[in-house]
This record gives sequence, structure tokens and C-alpha cells, in this order.
Amino acid sequence: MGMIGGGSNAFIGAIHRLATNMDGLIELSCGAFSSNPDTSRESGRALLLPENRIYASYEDMIVNERSLPENERMDFVSIVTPNFAHIDPALTALNNGFHVVIEKPMTFTLDEAKQLQQKVKDTGLLLALTHTYAGYPMVKQARSMVQDGTIGKVRKIYVEYPQGWLSTLSEKEGNAQAAWRTDPKRSGKSGAMGDIGTHAAHLAEYVSGLKITELCADLNIVVPGRALDDDGAVLLRFDNGATGVLMATQIAAGEENALKLRVYGEKGSIEWQQMEPNTLLVKWLDQPTQVYRAGQGYLSSFAKFNTRTPGGHPEGYIEAFANIYRCFAHTLNARLEGTTPTPEMLDYPGVEEGVRGMAFIENVVASSNSSQKWTSFKI
Amino acid sequence: MGMIGGGSNAFIGAIHRLATNMDGLIELSCGAFSSNPDTSRESGRALLLPENRIYASYEDMIVNERSLPENERMDFVSIVTPNFAHIDPALTALNNGFHVVIEKPMTFTLDEAKQLQQKVKDTGLLLALTHTYAGYPMVKQARSMVQDGTIGKVRKIYVEYPQGWLSTLSEKEGNAQAAWRTDPKRSGKSGAMGDIGTHAAHLAEYVSGLKITELCADLNIVVPGRALDDDGAVLLRFDNGATGVLMATQIAAGEENALKLRVYGEKGSIEWQQMEPNTLLVKWLDQPTQVYRAGQGYLSSFAKFNTRTPGGHPEGYIEAFANIYRCFAHTLNARLEGTTPTPEMLDYPGVEEGVRGMAFIENVVASSNSSQKWTSFKI
Amino acid sequence: MGMIGGGSNAFIGAIHRLATNMDGLIELSCGAFSSNPDTSRESGRALLLPENRIYASYEDMIVNERSLPENERMDFVSIVTPNFAHIDPALTALNNGFHVVIEKPMTFTLDEAKQLQQKVKDTGLLLALTHTYAGYPMVKQARSMVQDGTIGKVRKIYVEYPQGWLSTLSEKEGNAQAAWRTDPKRSGKSGAMGDIGTHAAHLAEYVSGLKITELCADLNIVVPGRALDDDGAVLLRFDNGATGVLMATQIAAGEENALKLRVYGEKGSIEWQQMEPNTLLVKWLDQPTQVYRAGQGYLSSFAKFNTRTPGGHPEGYIEAFANIYRCFAHTLNARLEGTTPTPEMLDYPGVEEGVRGMAFIENVVASSNSSQKWTSFKI
Amino acid sequence: MGMIGGGSNAFIGAIHRLATNMDGLIELSCGAFSSNPDTSRESGRALLLPENRIYASYEDMIVNERSLPENERMDFVSIVTPNFAHIDPALTALNNGFHVVIEKPMTFTLDEAKQLQQKVKDTGLLLALTHTYAGYPMVKQARSMVQDGTIGKVRKIYVEYPQGWLSTLSEKEGNAQAAWRTDPKRSGKSGAMGDIGTHAAHLAEYVSGLKITELCADLNIVVPGRALDDDGAVLLRFDNGATGVLMATQIAAGEENALKLRVYGEKGSIEWQQMEPNTLLVKWLDQPTQVYRAGQGYLSSFAKFNTRTPGGHPEGYIEAFANIYRCFAHTLNARLEGTTPTPEMLDYPGVEEGVRGMAFIENVVASSNSSQKWTSFKI
Repeated sequence: MGMIGGGSNAFIGAIHRLATNMDGLIELSCGAFSSNPDTSRESGRALLLPENRIYASYEDMIVNERSLPENERMDFVSIVTPNFAHIDPALTALNNGFHVVIEKPMTFTLDEAKQLQQKVKDTGLLLALTHTYAGYPMVKQARSMVQDGTIGKVRKIYVEYPQGWLSTLSEKEGNAQAAWRTDPKRSGKSGAMGDIGTHAAHLAEYVSGLKITELCADLNIVVPGRALDDDGAVLLRFDNGATGVLMATQIAAGEENALKLRVYGEKGSIEWQQMEPNTLLVKWLDQPTQVYRAGQGYLSSFAKFNTRTPGGHPEGYIEAFANIYRCFAHTLNARLEGTTPTPEMLDYPGVEEGVRGMAFIENVVASSNSSQKWTSFKI
Repeated sequence: MGMIGGGSNAFIGAIHRLATNMDGLIELSCGAFSSNPDTSRESGRALLLPENRIYASYEDMIVNERSLPENERMDFVSIVTPNFAHIDPALTALNNGFHVVIEKPMTFTLDEAKQLQQKVKDTGLLLALTHTYAGYPMVKQARSMVQDGTIGKVRKIYVEYPQGWLSTLSEKEGNAQAAWRTDPKRSGKSGAMGDIGTHAAHLAEYVSGLKITELCADLNIVVPGRALDDDGAVLLRFDNGATGVLMATQIAAGEENALKLRVYGEKGSIEWQQMEPNTLLVKWLDQPTQVYRAGQGYLSSFAKFNTRTPGGHPEGYIEAFANIYRCFAHTLNARLEGTTPTPEMLDYPGVEEGVRGMAFIENVVASSNSSQKWTSFKI
Repeated sequence: MGMIGGGSNAFIGAIHRLATNMDGLIELSCGAFSSNPDTSRESGRALLLPENRIYASYEDMIVNERSLPENERMDFVSIVTPNFAHIDPALTALNNGFHVVIEKPMTFTLDEAKQLQQKVKDTGLLLALTHTYAGYPMVKQARSMVQDGTIGKVRKIYVEYPQGWLSTLSEKEGNAQAAWRTDPKRSGKSGAMGDIGTHAAHLAEYVSGLKITELCADLNIVVPGRALDDDGAVLLRFDNGATGVLMATQIAAGEENALKLRVYGEKGSIEWQQMEPNTLLVKWLDQPTQVYRAGQGYLSSFAKFNTRTPGGHPEGYIEAFANIYRCFAHTLNARLEGTTPTPEMLDYPGVEEGVRGMAFIENVVASSNSSQKWTSFKI
Repeated sequence: MGMIGGGSNAFIGAIHRLATNMDGLIELSCGAFSSNPDTSRESGRALLLPENRIYASYEDMIVNERSLPENERMDFVSIVTPNFAHIDPALTALNNGFHVVIEKPMTFTLDEAKQLQQKVKDTGLLLALTHTYAGYPMVKQARSMVQDGTIGKVRKIYVEYPQGWLSTLSEKEGNAQAAWRTDPKRSGKSGAMGDIGTHAAHLAEYVSGLKITELCADLNIVVPGRALDDDGAVLLRFDNGATGVLMATQIAAGEENALKLRVYGEKGSIEWQQMEPNTLLVKWLDQPTQVYRAGQGYLSSFAKFNTRTPGGHPEGYIEAFANIYRCFAHTLNARLEGTTPTPEMLDYPGVEEGVRGMAFIENVVASSNSSQKWTSFKI
């Protein structure tokens, strides 16, 4: 793996490295960790990379790596830069035959997303999108149970994502992550909806198997002095007639990272919370609620495939992140070895989800600016 | 107290009697328990009332009780009939000098509510509205902490009320409560929003001290064959600029009575759930979340006034209900004795809240029928 | 009902009155509320009793009430005095034909308990012991599920009861309840074990249907200056070969009233906590844990009989207390009416449980004073 | 790192590898994964080790690795064999200059533990003991808060560790881990107390900073046909006069890995549960309970040093495990680089804790066999 972005002090780059280390399937072999060559060099050294695999730019990296013998060069790039700097390295990598792992939201605009989608199609290469929360085993279990009809036809979806870390103007107080996330030039058209609303929307669609068809959004800038939404709520309509509510806010004082999903069907419902990720509540019309737990024998093959420890030994966020990479790595290995990946291996978010995520952002912003109640979900 | 409605098999009448019994302040002295005189008689006998205080109609009761000597007759009526049958007995009682306790929603229409408001004003009599959830001590504590500025200026409110008891067409299967709640002729313009959405809206306004000024509603009939909404969500704007989301549904399979309120301020936030009512979570920007608990010495005078047991001895729904009656009874006693009730005694919902509740219903229905995003909250 | 003890400021007397008021089955008709006649009179007046039914002593009350016409006099006494003052009023009441409800622990000594047991047997009158926690519907449910073999043969029992209210020497700071509870002359041989250890032991035996046969106790006086144990732990052996652990402490800083029971069988287990009393966890060897909830249709007849509200409308401590009285009142009414009470009505703690409770206290104290590991449970 | 034991199918070996991979500080460079050379070879190949670093026995590995140039050979061994096979590889490694990481319980007998302690002292080499639960950040926080006096002098400790995985005779049904854990020839004198009781005892001592001085144990074989205890409870006395209760069982049907610690002091108390490891409850005499959460700014330097993600992004068991290795690796690096490790780096369990663990096992077994109540804790 060659990393693009993720130099010292970058939150998400460090997480990607923890996640790729875990299972011994992926090796960080090179990197262009910053648009500042000095920062890149320092970061690479801190990661004990050989000097000749630390690059001053992603262009250098891709060119040089391509010139290495096949069994020595990186297999794929991992792009962990701010949103505005996703598309160029992604296209360059694909154009040079490298597979891509990329942070969400996938690009800066929907147009870029569609461009990337076309490129993936044209090259036939793999692209994984790190919608981390789809990597949790109990999310997989929820998806299995919704999709095999266990809870009946879906009627209602609530998905909420309250955070409190932007309750103050921390982007003016030296918080680097806050700085780029709240900056339209680096983040895109939306703040909170782009950063965490996309996670919530993806989770709802992923678990339910439904697609959003219409939405009614109210985005707000709550903290004065900010240029992008830091709060919002969206009413949803899905393609089977179900409705939903999506809430995403970064000004909910005292909240950490409280992503929660509830899907109600005709026969029962599921509830999952990211901060207690190893538990899935399954509720029934006339029977006691059941507490499904990670690591247990009664779970689906998808849940089991994404678990490393026995019941009661909690796995967390890094493991969920690692699951995305692990599925991707298994799929990539299968391709390299000419074998067929299992459905469990193939179950990671990709370019389609990236396009829908970018469309979600653009549609939500359009709806929020409209005085009409409902906006069709356009791609 | 004279009860109007609440005959055998009526859920809420039985609850009112449990609640009024509890503190030894109120005595059920007579009743007209049903529009069917036989049912009324049977119900009264089962309650061990003397024959001459069991009435065939509320009109009979009010006339006869008025003719009794002052120290023998009932002090007030409690109206626990379906919504359509609130206004007439309420006006009759007030016209005859009796105070009123009345179930929510207060009336069948907003017009009726305003008529009742005028009558209360004209007669100078007391009216209490049983918004039960406002009776919980930790709701009082939340209100105290929001209103004294402890969590700072309110920015965001989430209030949700998922139930599952109308997930099937139980009104066709002999469920009497379901039958009238889903019947526009008895329930009014709205089903779920009228029944539980009003509770949620009241709770949000009561705790925050804010007023809804605009809303954007999406009401749904999820179970085929039903005439009124059984599900809905509302985006809210409040008079201080805060926004909110209200969710009320009765088709959430597996949910019991899961009313939950979150109020986010600039400095912190509060979270309360009806199903664990003795706990109030108070969250902070940079300090550990605090778990406020009923019965503790550090609580506000309003919380303490509405508590009977020491910490760790849970009080519940009946106690919350009893608190509305208890505050009302203390206020009434003060009036009878010519003393001044304390602010704690006066803190029960009344006719203003009833008018706002009816306005909420009408505005939500209007908004749901509109293609415009925002509807002004009109009274 | 005539109350003995429970004057102003007495915690438990007020609770008894709330509990007896609730269901409209029991009327407080007279009382001797204190050994101090003035206090008794004031208390009775505050409770709106007629002057001639407020007594200066329990002896006066019993003599006078007996002289009233049968349909005017009290049916039973409720004894809510400190432990040392239980036996005399109980015997006097029984000797004069009055049934008895009595606070736990039942008496001051095991000898007294056996004396009372003989008297109940001789008179054929009813005695109910207010082991409140046995009144919770989910405790009834747990008992049903253990005893019908749902979780298989019981192997292990954990019961714990941590409180923090005696963490400091509050008996020297004007806390009246602390004063008598920590005073060997009023409380008996044990402090914490007598007050709350007896509740824990009763709960374990009641739910499991087993009897303690041997125990190994370690009682401690943690707060200097105290004369009775304020903390202790007991290893238990039961009559079917199961073992257990009982922990009771009143010096657990920050704990409220955290009674918790876990019973493990060969096939599954149950877990119940008093502070969230409407939930019963049922765990299984190879299936998801189930969350049984009060008010649901799938519960046992015993759980349902002791419930007033539908699921999600929490009942609490006062309701549990009221359930003991309600079962007792129904049983008493059946006797007065010559009918047969149902098994659900008869399911309240009585004199046998009172004798076992006193034996528990004496055996635990003996064991704690012994250097032998195991002490046989003697009655 | 060279691994001894942990071949395919071994639970704990896989966990060690996940844990050592995570932070990029440790590389698996060689291994003797089984006493069966074929199994070792297969395991090593599956781990992508070069053929010449996969060894048929630990003796081969240590001899060969020692012969490699210093910068090529392994720095330390990690011993993850069953208990009986700990001491020989540990002594051999130390005798040949290799540091040691070793699973708990440290050895097969207390005598072996003391022998190993002496060898560590004589060689001056490092030994880390993988008492995983001491690696959780909120356990570190608890320790900080207890030891800096925040909760006052410790009075009472409850530590419990219920599991259900040995509820049936799974050792006869092909469960390899169950087979050796329940076999006195491979596990030692105790089953449940050796496997998980030692974790509980370590956690209690580690967080409280106290030492057990006396104990009273009751060990049981609950499942017929088993040779070692699968259940037990222990009353404890600590060196400051505090008392405690330790419960460890593997026959608690439906329990996963429910280690929980409560420490009560004069001013407050702490509560931590392994299955929700990122939360630490801090309770107070007269103030609301506080919910300390991993990843927050207000935590101690020890908690922060052992955290990788921001608040709300849960870390789990593998991360806790990795923390032991990470501290050990930092300490080892400091030694290799001639720098002084920080107190945070040095905070990992070592040979002293290993000796106390083995003493715990032997004292608990002796106590359980004794008819005397109290047994002194002897080393």
C-alpha cells in the first residue's frame, strides 16, 4: 500500500495505518504523506519507511512505483487527503494501474464522483470507500436480517448522528481537522452533512437495502462565523414507500460520535449504536426484544467474517475500519491469485456508494435552499 | 372529584383513579362514567360509590352536585372521555362553578380550545391538562437546568416518541382504545400526532421554555385501511432561533412508549427518556457527563416537590400522573383556604398548553398537506 | 386498616400509606402513629383522620376498635415501627382478632419470630410481611421462569444489595432512620444484614424456590463509631446443591438502592435490578439474550396480576409495595366473602418468610463470629 | 518477536498477533508455533514467515536466533502455550539473552513463578505478563483516580468475572481450549480461578494499589465429569483493612466475558465493566455520578497514553492487548536506545504480578480445601 496524505497530526491517516496493520494482510510500503515534501519525509521516517519509498508528491509516488518490478511495487494507493484533493490522485492511480482505497466523501463534487465512477469502470480496477461503520459486524448482521425479511417489509428508518466537537469555533483555535472540514474550499458544499450525514445516509441505505428517492432538508449554520452547515435534519422517502428521518449535527454539546440506526419493519425492528457496536437490538411485535451480540454462533456469515474475537471481547472502531481493508485485501488477493472472492469478501463500499454519497450532499444542499418541501434525489 | 368517562375497560380512566388515589388529597366522590347509563352504573358500583353519586350523564352529575351543600359536593370534574367529548362537559362544569381536569389533547378542534380558554378566563376557575410527562421529577429538573441557563442558550431540540402498538390494524381486532384513537370522528384531525405528537411538542416547549414558530411536517398512514396518520416527523423552528426535530410514530414494531427528549445548549445538554424516568443525563462540552437521579439532595425544588421516595426507589408513570393532580389539588386547596400557592404547586399544564397542543395538531396537519416547506405556527 | 407507627418524618410509614391508597382497596381508618401521644395525634390530624380514630397507643387502638361494630372497625393493623417494637403489637392484634401486615425484619429476634408464627397458626389469621421487592412484576416473572424449569436446574445465585447512605456517621447528624437502624437496642443483632441482607436473602430464595442450608459470613463495621455491621458478604449453599454469594453494604459511596439478582441455571439465567425494575434479562446458552418487559402479553399470570399499566409506562417501588398490600387485601376480601383466593392473590410474603429472615440474621451473625468456614442454617 | 505456541486454531496466539501488528512497533519475525513441527511449519507459512525463521521447537528457535547478527535476530519471545509449557521456554529465552512476554497465569506452579522471578532479577531482562484488562485506558484512569485519593481511602472492592462457555462439558466435544483449560496436567491446580480468577485478582490489586492479605475461598466443580473448579467465590481482606468479594465462574449460562470491578472509597467509588470498556462510572456521596469516557481531554496521562482514537470511536479488547505490548515495546526501545522510559511506558504487568497471580491460585485452592474461614495470603 502507498498512502497519499495522512502525515503527522492527521487524524484519519493514523487510523488507516492502525487498521491496515491489524491483520497482517497489508503492508505500508510507501507514501506521499503531504503536499509539503518536508512533512512527507518526516512522516515517512517516523513510520520507518526506507528513504526511497518516501515521496515528495503523489505524482512522484505513482510514477516511481510503477517503474518498480511488479512484485516490489505497491498494489494500491490509499487516499486520505481532504476532500478537494481526492479526485486527482485517484484518477492518476487508476490511470497507472493501481487500485484505490479512498476516504469518504469520495470527491469534492458529484461530477467528480461520476468521473471517477467511469474511470473505475473503464480500468476495471478496484475502488474501496472507507464508510467505516459498514464494517462493524453487527451492522452486517442487521443488514442480513433486514434483507432476508426477518423484520418484514421496512416501513420507517431513523438514523441520527450527533457530535459535539464543533460546538465552538474550534477551527479558529488551531484545530486542523476542524479547519479543513469547515472550509468550503477544502471540504465542499456541505460541512456536517458531507462529513457525517453521508455516513448516516450510507448506513441507512446499506442496512435497509433501500434507496432514497426524495428528501426535505434543513441545514443550519449554528455557530456564528462558520461558512458551512454544522447541523441539519432531513426527511426521507425511500424507493419502497418507506419514510425516514436523518439527523446529523456537530454542535450537540456533550455528544461524542453517537451514530445510531433504527429500521422498523412490519414484523420487527433493529437498533444499532456505534458507541456500543457489539450489540444489535432486535425488537418484535409480541415477543421479548433480543440482544444479538458480536462473536456469537447464531450470527450471519457476514457478521462472522468480520469478527476476530469471541463474544464479550469487544471489537471497536479500528477493527471496523480494518474490516473494510480486510475485505478489500481479500478481494484483491483473489484477483491476483485468479480465484473467486466470496460474497463476504466483496461486501465493502465502493464507487457506487461514493457516487450516491456525493449525490446525497448535493441534493441535501439543494433541498435546504429550496422553499419546496420535497426534492427528488438526482444523480 | 367527579369523573366524566373512564368506565370499565377504559385505560386512561383507571390511570386517573390510581393517580388521584395515591396521595390522599383527592377523593373520587361521584361519576358519570359512560354515555351508557348502565355502564356508568356498573362502573360506579365497582368503584364502591354510593348509588346516589353515580350519574347517568355528566349533565345530571353537574346539576345534582351543584345542588348539594358546598362541603358535600365535588370540587372539580375530571374529564377522561375521547377527544370529541371534551368540550361540552368542560364548558358545562365551568359554567356551573366546577374546576376542571381534562385529558389531552384538550379538545376536538383548535376553535373549541380557544372557546374553552375564554371560558376559563371568564370564570376564573382552574383547569389542569394531564400532560403526564411534565409530571416527572427529572423533567422538572431538566426544565430548571435549561431555564436557569445551566446548559447555555438552546440550539437544538430532538424529541421522539416511537410506539409500536398500532403496527397492525388492531382497531379492527377489538382493541377499543385503538378504535377511537384511529377514528376521525372521535379523535380529531390527527391520529399519532394528536395522541403522542402533542405530548412530544409539549415536552419540548415545557423543558426548553421556547415556543415553536414554524414547522415542516410529513404525516403518513402506514398501515393500510387506516384513516388517520399513524406516523409522522416534523422539522421545527423555535422563537429563539433554535431548530428541532419531532418524531412520533405508532407503527414502530417492538417499541413500547419510548418518549425521549434531548435539548442541546451552548454549554451542555440534557437527555431524558420516559422509560427510565428517574435518570437525567447532563452532558458537557469538556467534562464528564453527569447522571442526575431522582430523589437526590442536589435537585431543584421543583424536582423535589414532585418526588415521594428516596433515591434508588423508582417512581414511575402513575406517580408522574399523580404529580399533575397533586399540584392541581394543592393549588385548589390554597384557593379554598385563601393562601398563596407556591411556584412548585402552580407548575402544572393548563389551558394555554391545551390551546398550543390543539394548534400544534392543526398546524402539523396543514403543513403535511402543503407542498411548501415551512408553515407558520398559527393559533 | 389501622396503622401502628409511621408518624410524621417516618420514611416507611409514608410509603405504606402511598401503597395502600393506590388501588382503592384499603382505607386508612385509624392509627396509633407514635409512642408519643402528641406525635400520634398530630400525625393522625395531618392524615385527616377523625379525632376518635386517632389513638395514643396501639393498645388503645386495638381495644377500642374491637369494641366498634364489625362493619365499622378496622380489618387489620399495619405495623411500621422499628424492629424492637414489632412483636408486642402483632401479638396483641392477633389476640384480638385482627389480621396483621408487618414490616421486615419481622421481629427483633428469631425467638420472637417463632412465637409469632405459632400465634398466626393458632389464630388462623393472616399475616403479610412487606418484602417489597417480591412485589415487582418482573420478580414474579423471574420466579415463574425459574420454577417452571425454563432456565434448567439452578446452579449459581448472585444477589447483591449495595447502598451508600450510611457511608458517613449520619446517625450522629440527625438522620432519624439512620439512628434507629444502627442502634442494637432498636434494630437487633445486625445492621445492614438485618435491614437489606434480609431483602436479598428473601429475593434469592423466593425467585429460586431454594432454601439456604449453609453459609459463611463476613460482617464488618466500616464506619468507626458504629455498633452494628454496615457491610457484609456471605457465601451460600442451597438445598439443591447450588451455591451463591450475597453482598449487602450500606457504605458503598454513591450507590442508591442497587439490589440485583442473578440466577444461573443449566440452560439459561435471569438477571433483575431493582433500579430498572420493569426489565428482566433472560440469557441463554446459545441464543440471544431476551429482554422481558413489564406489561407485555407474553408474561406469566403472576406478573400480569401485579401490573397496572401497559408496557413502557413504568411502575416502580410504590407499586411494588402496593402489590403486597393488594394481594393481601384480595386474600382478605376472599376470606370475608367466603370465596377462594387465586394463587396469584396468595403470592405475598408471610410469617414463614419472616421466620426465615430472622434465622438468616442470627445465622449470619453467628457465622461471622465463627472461625469455621461453614455454619448450618438453623431455625 | 519470536512466538512460542499459538499455532493454527489457538485462540490466544491469534490475539497476540493482532495486538502486536496494530501499532507498527513489533514485527513477527520468527516462531515455534507448536510442539508438533508440522503444525508449526504450517502455521508459520500461513503467517508468511520465511522458511528459515519457522522452527520445529522453541529450543531450536532460541539457539538459531541467538546465532543471527544482533540487528537481524528477534528481540524477544512471546510465550502463548498452555500454562504447563511456560517455564521452560521462558527460562531458556532469558538464559540466552532474550526478553520475554508471557501469557497469564505466568507458570504452572508458584515455585516455578518464583524461579522465573529470580531469573529475571539475575539476567536484568524484561518480562511482560499479558494481564490484558490492565491495558484498557479506563482501567488506567480508575487506577489514577483511586491512587491519587480522588475517591478517598478504599473500603470495599467487588470484582466479578462471570463467563458461560464451560456450562456444558465442551472439553469432551472437541473444544481444544476447553480441553486444556480443564485438564490439571496442562492448566495447573485450578481451572476457573487460574484462568479468570487471576485476572480479577490482578485487576483489583492493580486499580486499588492494595494487596490481598487473607482470603476465604469456595471453589466448585459444577459440571459433572470435570476435574478442576469451574466456579468459585472468594472473600478478601486487603492490607489497608478493606474487604472484598471476588467471583469467578465459567458456568454462568448466557454470560460472555463479564469482568466488572467496583472500588468503594470514603468519598466516592469507581465502576468499570470490560464489555463496555470505554466508560468509567465515578460515583459520589452527594453529587451526580460522572461518566468518564475514553478519548477525552480530562483523563490522566496514563489513560491518554493507552488510547488511539478520539472519544466515541470505541477501542476494545485487541487494543487493550496491544497496549501491554506497546508499553513493553516502548520500554524495550528505550533500553535499546539508552533512554529513560516514561512512567506511562513502564506501566505494564510483569514478573511480580505473575508471582502474585500464582500465589493467588495456590492460596485460593488451599483455602477452598480448608475448614478454617480465613487463610493468609502466602507467597
